[in-house]
Amino acid sequence: MSTTLKFTALLLALSLCRGLRHDYIDNYIDNYIDEVTEEEAELVAQPSKYGSLWPLPQKVQLSEVSFKLTSSSFRIVDAKDSTAGPSCSLETFSQLVYEDEYGAKSINSTTISDFPRFAHRGILLDSSRHFLPIKVILANLETMAMNKINVFHWHIVDDQSFPYLSRTFPQLSQQGAYHPYTHVYTPADVKMVIEFARLRGIRVIPEFDTPGHTQSWGKGQPDLLTPCYSGSKPSGTFGPVNPILNTTYDFMSQFFKEISAVFPDAYVHLGGDEVDFTCWKSNPDIQKFMDQQGFGQDYSKLESFYIQKLLDIVTTTEKGYTIWQEVFDNGVKLKPDTLIHVWKGNQQQYQNEMANVTSSGYRTLLSTPWYLNRISYGQDWQGHYKADPQDFKGTEAQKKLVIGGEACLWGEYVDATNLTPRLWPRASAVAERLWSAKDVTDINDAFSRLSVHRCRMVDRGIPAEPLFSSYCPHEYKGI
Amino acid sequence: MSTTLKFTALLLALSLCRGLRHDYIDNYIDNYIDEVTEEEAELVAQPSKYGSLWPLPQKVQLSEVSFKLTSSSFRIVDAKDSTAGPSCSLETFSQLVYEDEYGAKSINSTTISDFPRFAHRGILLDSSRHFLPIKVILANLETMAMNKINVFHWHIVDDQSFPYLSRTFPQLSQQGAYHPYTHVYTPADVKMVIEFARLRGIRVIPEFDTPGHTQSWGKGQPDLLTPCYSGSKPSGTFGPVNPILNTTYDFMSQFFKEISAVFPDAYVHLGGDEVDFTCWKSNPDIQKFMDQQGFGQDYSKLESFYIQKLLDIVTTTEKGYTIWQEVFDNGVKLKPDTLIHVWKGNQQQYQNEMANVTSSGYRTLLSTPWYLNRISYGQDWQGHYKADPQDFKGTEAQKKLVIGGEACLWGEYVDATNLTPRLWPRASAVAERLWSAKDVTDINDAFSRLSVHRCRMVDRGIPAEPLFSSYCPHEYKGI
Repeated sequence: MSTTLKFTALLLALSLCRGLRHDYIDNYIDNYIDEVTEEEAELVAQPSKYGSLWPLPQKVQLSEVSFKLTSSSFRIVDAKDSTAGPSCSLETFSQLVYEDEYGAKSINSTTISDFPRFAHRGILLDSSRHFLPIKVILANLETMAMNKINVFHWHIVDDQSFPYLSRTFPQLSQQGAYHPYTHVYTPADVKMVIEFARLRGIRVIPEFDTPGHTQSWGKGQPDLLTPCYSGSKPSGTFGPVNPILNTTYDFMSQFFKEISAVFPDAYVHLGGDEVDFTCWKSNPDIQKFMDQQGFGQDYSKLESFYIQKLLDIVTTTEKGYTIWQEVFDNGVKLKPDTLIHVWKGNQQQYQNEMANVTSSGYRTLLSTPWYLNRISYGQDWQGHYKADPQDFKGTEAQKKLVIGGEACLWGEYVDATNLTPRLWPRASAVAERLWSAKDVTDINDAFSRLSVHRCRMVDRGIPAEPLFSSYCPHEYKGI
Repeated sequence: MSTTLKFTALLLALSLCRGLRHDYIDNYIDNYIDEVTEEEAELVAQPSKYGSLWPLPQKVQLSEVSFKLTSSSFRIVDAKDSTAGPSCSLETFSQLVYEDEYGAKSINSTTISDFPRFAHRGILLDSSRHFLPIKVILANLETMAMNKINVFHWHIVDDQSFPYLSRTFPQLSQQGAYHPYTHVYTPADVKMVIEFARLRGIRVIPEFDTPGHTQSWGKGQPDLLTPCYSGSKPSGTFGPVNPILNTTYDFMSQFFKEISAVFPDAYVHLGGDEVDFTCWKSNPDIQKFMDQQGFGQDYSKLESFYIQKLLDIVTTTEKGYTIWQEVFDNGVKLKPDTLIHVWKGNQQQYQNEMANVTSSGYRTLLSTPWYLNRISYGQDWQGHYKADPQDFKGTEAQKKLVIGGEACLWGEYVDATNLTPRLWPRASAVAERLWSAKDVTDINDAFSRLSVHRCRMVDRGIPAEPLFSSYCPHEYKGI
């Protein structure tokens, strides 16, 4: 998936003028230096020689020669050997343009050769713990494009609610959404999200997580979930998907047939994480099935039995699939093109997991260090920035199996009121790690560029929160 | 300052109808119970018998008798013995009204007798670390009123910037603001804030913190700050306000004369916290002055010298003053009506401080447990809710000297992009602690009421963030 984009900005200009870009940055840094004395003395920010470029391109040569942009004399011409087509929207170009205090736009003569380090640069949003209005999703797709994020991982349903309106099984959202009309994604909504993303070079990968995380599915689909027992009687509560009924697999076949048609991407995310065995253990029919299959008391074998059948079903839709790491950990037989999504453990543990997954020949995505829902006081973007998905013990061949990563913003404490400032610019740190060269690790330079990049997002109407005490020339206009 | 508000809602209605308020709450709780199994099992939420009242009034009697509100038949009549005047906007009344699914508004017959537990219920916002546009301040004043907060503590200037446009010393903001025109509060802005607050029963107490936290003052007022020395030569940097020059006190006299006229409240906050002695120690003129005064090497005596003179100056303006606890800790002579603002230490330490301050006969405000700028993952509102400002060892007379508290949202990591969701509903927890009776401590009941109160704020256009997985009937419409 790695692509090469190469362009040279060729500009005709009426006159040369002195570059003013650094005036704002210098002023900004002046103010910053006052502040760092108090609590962040380790960061000594200087204006970056790369201005406000974010993520940093692979190769940049900036000259001091500056041109004024005027509507009558301006045109973009791709270099002869560029792979960028006429439809390419050139985010990078816009980041080279700067304004003087009268609003006149200029650009310095610049040569850029660029391509992403990793092909898969994703963000997970969760529309089940809280419903996310379409407006919020679109605004964040726009912001993903500004940050060269190219995958929207849509964790669309979960225990709490089922907002996806299925044409085949409309009862799922009718019963399982927070509200059947106001808190659902209609087929038209989903189509709009996919098309809006496509126009910005972003793939939409939906996640329909089973067999756990499915409480909301059970409301509109009787018999899909396992009845839990209290002693010899059903307790009235339900556990994970019931893996011993043929009706379960009939349902999954029809459901994923629809999903594969609705979402054009070549991949679907099948979840498979955090399956709680308590309910399965309580159910006498499940126990009987375990005996028949010779699984003993090893319920991870039952989980694998279910997942194996699900993967076979999804394979018939000709989609590839991504699964959370537990499915790999449990030894489920997987197609060689399966993508394993690593999300658990401390640094040591996830690095071991990356080593194990890749030594088994599977491609992998990393998310563990990028759970942006976890917040703390201060500049936690620096920790996100420092994590590197290829930082584990393994061969060069193993490292190549790391195709990227995803920042995850789980939704327990996030909805339309706070999603956007909580995501940006913290996710921008991940975006640069996944785009720029491995050796782009200067935290001071990053602070300088990211501060200005954050103000650019604010100027474009995105409430990206501040890194530290400072100001933007154009502050956010909302509340 | 304690006031008594007492009213009985008397309603004429065309017809009786079944109360529907609990339908939404029940549905909400159903969804919540699915969730708590996962990570917050200690909270078992039930719909509160008090519906969505927040903060909880002192006495509430709700009956099952429900009335429909119709424009033609509705009027509000105060009870004979009520102290609420015709201009009283009755936030509580609006919280009793609920909608059915068709939007028809109803209210149950209710008798409320109410007054606040503490007279001073404040929120500190910081417009120096980041400039806060007027729109954000007004929206948060509106939200303070919804939560019966009655003091806006405006930490208006600090090291980082001086956005207050002084008529007497316009150079202070001309040189010290982030931008002299776009990042300042003009006299008209300040007047608007004060009037907007007044109409909502909110006092505006400005803080002009000296002698520390004054870097931005020095830019527009030469000689105000102490020149720091490196060896025998000035280093070019500056420290706290220079306490040994007569010009300093001339400036402060004129400056606080203006402040006392611009801000009508009877109190001004004079700061006095976190004075760093390093620069004073380096300066030979200061050393000489220390010798002359017989202060030895005790720079807290120099600090006290400055503060004493400042307090004398402010006393001539006929304002009362509030100061941060260090001024008390350093033994500065204070007027008996001085209000000591406690902000430091762990629980044991701040409780000791409250005991010391009140045993010395001073009135006090608590903020230590309510530094809302400090964020962590999860439901930290519960910790804010549990803190009680009278929970320290002392006599009843001492407890009465606690006149309230303030939630503080310092601005290092906060600007217009994220202030409002970071403040609400976390500050609502503080609001109830300061308003409601001491024994209102049921965290489950609070969770239930606060969840619905949060949705009410969202419905009124305020991006108050969620407490946990859930939904609001009308989600936030912004991004």
